[in-house]
Amino acid sequence: MAARERLLVIGGDAAGMSAASQARRRRGPDELEIVVVERGWHASYSACGIPYYVGGVVDDLDALIARTPAEFRDRGIDLRLRTEAVEIDLDGGRVRIRSLDEGGEHWEPYDDLMIATGADPIRPRLPGADAAGVHGVQILGDGVAIRRVLEEEKPRRAVVVGGGYIGLEMAEAMVMRGLEVSLVDAADQPMGTLDPDMGAIVADAMRGIGVQLHLGEPVEGFDASPEGRVTAVRTGSRTLPADLVVLGLGVKPASGLARDAGVETGPTGGIVTDRRMRTRAERVWAAGDCVETRHLVSGAPVAIALGTHANKQGRVAGVNLGGGYATFPGVVGTAVSKICDVEVARTGLNEREAAAAGFATLSVVVESTTRAGYHPGAAKMTTKLIAERRSGRLLGAQIVGRENAAKRVDGLAIALWHGMTVEEMTGLDLGYAPPFAPVWDPVLIAARKAADAVERDMRSGS
Amino acid sequence: MAARERLLVIGGDAAGMSAASQARRRRGPDELEIVVVERGWHASYSACGIPYYVGGVVDDLDALIARTPAEFRDRGIDLRLRTEAVEIDLDGGRVRIRSLDEGGEHWEPYDDLMIATGADPIRPRLPGADAAGVHGVQILGDGVAIRRVLEEEKPRRAVVVGGGYIGLEMAEAMVMRGLEVSLVDAADQPMGTLDPDMGAIVADAMRGIGVQLHLGEPVEGFDASPEGRVTAVRTGSRTLPADLVVLGLGVKPASGLARDAGVETGPTGGIVTDRRMRTRAERVWAAGDCVETRHLVSGAPVAIALGTHANKQGRVAGVNLGGGYATFPGVVGTAVSKICDVEVARTGLNEREAAAAGFATLSVVVESTTRAGYHPGAAKMTTKLIAERRSGRLLGAQIVGRENAAKRVDGLAIALWHGMTVEEMTGLDLGYAPPFAPVWDPVLIAARKAADAVERDMRSGS
Repeated sequence: MAARERLLVIGGDAAGMSAASQARRRRGPDELEIVVVERGWHASYSACGIPYYVGGVVDDLDALIARTPAEFRDRGIDLRLRTEAVEIDLDGGRVRIRSLDEGGEHWEPYDDLMIATGADPIRPRLPGADAAGVHGVQILGDGVAIRRVLEEEKPRRAVVVGGGYIGLEMAEAMVMRGLEVSLVDAADQPMGTLDPDMGAIVADAMRGIGVQLHLGEPVEGFDASPEGRVTAVRTGSRTLPADLVVLGLGVKPASGLARDAGVETGPTGGIVTDRRMRTRAERVWAAGDCVETRHLVSGAPVAIALGTHANKQGRVAGVNLGGGYATFPGVVGTAVSKICDVEVARTGLNEREAAAAGFATLSVVVESTTRAGYHPGAAKMTTKLIAERRSGRLLGAQIVGRENAAKRVDGLAIALWHGMTVEEMTGLDLGYAPPFAPVWDPVLIAARKAADAVERDMRSGS
Repeated sequence: MAARERLLVIGGDAAGMSAASQARRRRGPDELEIVVVERGWHASYSACGIPYYVGGVVDDLDALIARTPAEFRDRGIDLRLRTEAVEIDLDGGRVRIRSLDEGGEHWEPYDDLMIATGADPIRPRLPGADAAGVHGVQILGDGVAIRRVLEEEKPRRAVVVGGGYIGLEMAEAMVMRGLEVSLVDAADQPMGTLDPDMGAIVADAMRGIGVQLHLGEPVEGFDASPEGRVTAVRTGSRTLPADLVVLGLGVKPASGLARDAGVETGPTGGIVTDRRMRTRAERVWAAGDCVETRHLVSGAPVAIALGTHANKQGRVAGVNLGGGYATFPGVVGTAVSKICDVEVARTGLNEREAAAAGFATLSVVVESTTRAGYHPGAAKMTTKLIAERRSGRLLGAQIVGRENAAKRVDGLAIALWHGMTVEEMTGLDLGYAPPFAPVWDPVLIAARKAADAVERDMRSGS
């Protein structure tokens, strides 16, 4: 009988716990010991659910927790919360561990190491950024803290810094709580992963629910009371009074621990892995927000922090750790979000990204409806397709609309996955019935218009 | 200058009018004369909208009419309603035309002929089938007639014969109108394009809205009053009193006119065309419900009457008639329907069809939710995937669920289009956010389970 091996997992959220669970499914406790160390109070939770908890759409914090520590322990996974990995010793095959509550440190040996350290929120190095009342939105504890402030301190004015998905969702959550909400972003549009024309539709929707937008205004600092509580957010143009500030400036891979140990990271700052989620260090694996992956349209490395990728990558690592074979092929950059009743989706490259990747592009924007125009539930939907000139290959797509609009991005993502041309897409056999689509689905109309544009562009001789 | 040519189109609904419109866009009236003859009172309408008009969801009949005859005439298309083509003379390049209102007949010459004669409803040759009060659901006039009966005669009991899409949608429409509704089908399940296990979920949903189902009971005849009005529907097991009967027994290609003239039809009864929608007769084109097309999964010819195919095929024919180049590649058998709040979708082959096409298959069924489980809008959704043994190639998919479930079939249809294996599908980058999907979209969960099943089946050695 082979000696019992030891898998040490750093990070107990989506990627780490998926890997641990998959490895356990394939190798029992007598074959493989699994230890997971997690810095926080919770494992395996839905960070994407935080805005819904803050806004009150989801009332019970436990609902965001997929599995409790006890459930993992019952499956033979030794999950240790409030335990931080502070150093990796690759040559020694060990990790230095600190108990955050008790304070002691010791070395834990491993045969295989799984790094799933997630992402760190980007916090501006600005005067006053450490004031009380300035909150990030990263871990479940952030959501708990913000909700407690909302319920106990009854703040009146909130300022959200950053107009990405989390920023917009948090702005909505605080509108739902009855606050006056302003949103500040250095960029000229919210939702910078969309092109400006599509971002403008989102901006209008945000204004429509009562959010004051201050775009093109970098934050220069935060004012605080003598007691150290935030009182205002300062931009170059104005001072916005604030009882509560939420930072939604995005995240970067939390790869420092790995990098310090000599595990290779790439141009995005994420850990480099192959398709099986192996790093370049022997028997060291990584998955989730801390790694970089391949964008299947541009071919470039990207770091995209998203629970769905973390789950898939963690599962792939776990299958391989368990003696199976699985691969994570890369991403096409799909994302969806809902702000009040406005649905937003994107996949592939936007115009700026496509240009940066060296593509010559053309774009079409189509206004249509989610259902047959005569059906009472028909809602407006704007679809944008970005195609390569000459070849007509689909490079990206963006959707802004109402009910039932955004999930159409899935079909577009699969078309991208296969390198379809917009002309080929005009023939796709998509579901049609009046409650679901006009007889020409918006995706098909957009494909037709894009195919026509490719043809016209070709003939124009420019 | 080339002599002006003449395009004669038989049939003024989706396929015929799409062809006429596309041809007109590319060739002006001085180059191409376009004549369309249409037997009915309406052109270019949404037959799929009839149940919504009958049920009162759509109130205005005009809403179902995409374009009026005047609009076509303004674009230089000579649309003649209530005009029937009764004979095609291929050698003479002419069609014998009858005016249904005035009664006269004459021959119309053509340079190109477009056949878009649609489909004929299947009517049972049963005693009493011609009684007053027994309605088909094919043309807009049928919808008008049924709605008039509902509003003026206030019938109390309706019997729907046939449990396909139209039958179920009409049953719902009459429930909405307050009638007692029974549905009779010779098959043991409604929605015969689904496998029995998925059809059973639909059956439960129909019962849930109050429809009496009598399955496995072929209709044997209709009773009528001395005045010739239907009074009951008879099956082998029972007599169902009925003030109104709706036949939803499906349709077959209306290809008789073409076949009689020597235009080739195939095993499905549909007219044979190539990908450019040319028939085997010189300069004779066909599109829509009257043709057969290629099923891209089975490779077999199929005749599927669906407005979305008719529109696409008509457009392709029109582009080619206008001097361009376009092709219709075939179908994967996608269909969606909504009965009350139950959404139903299918694509590819079901188990029976896959077996008939010579595939050895295995299936998985997954219960999941349309949104993150903790999101208040999360609704149940059952997803079934059918994969080929050994290769794991996706062959078909079926979905039954609530709000936001059915349109996920689009992604599955595109996966089928590209011959993806279920294992490849597990990596797909689909949109994730709590209001749109669990972190593992039901489609991804199903792909994982199917990939596991393929693997287990392979190792089981059977």
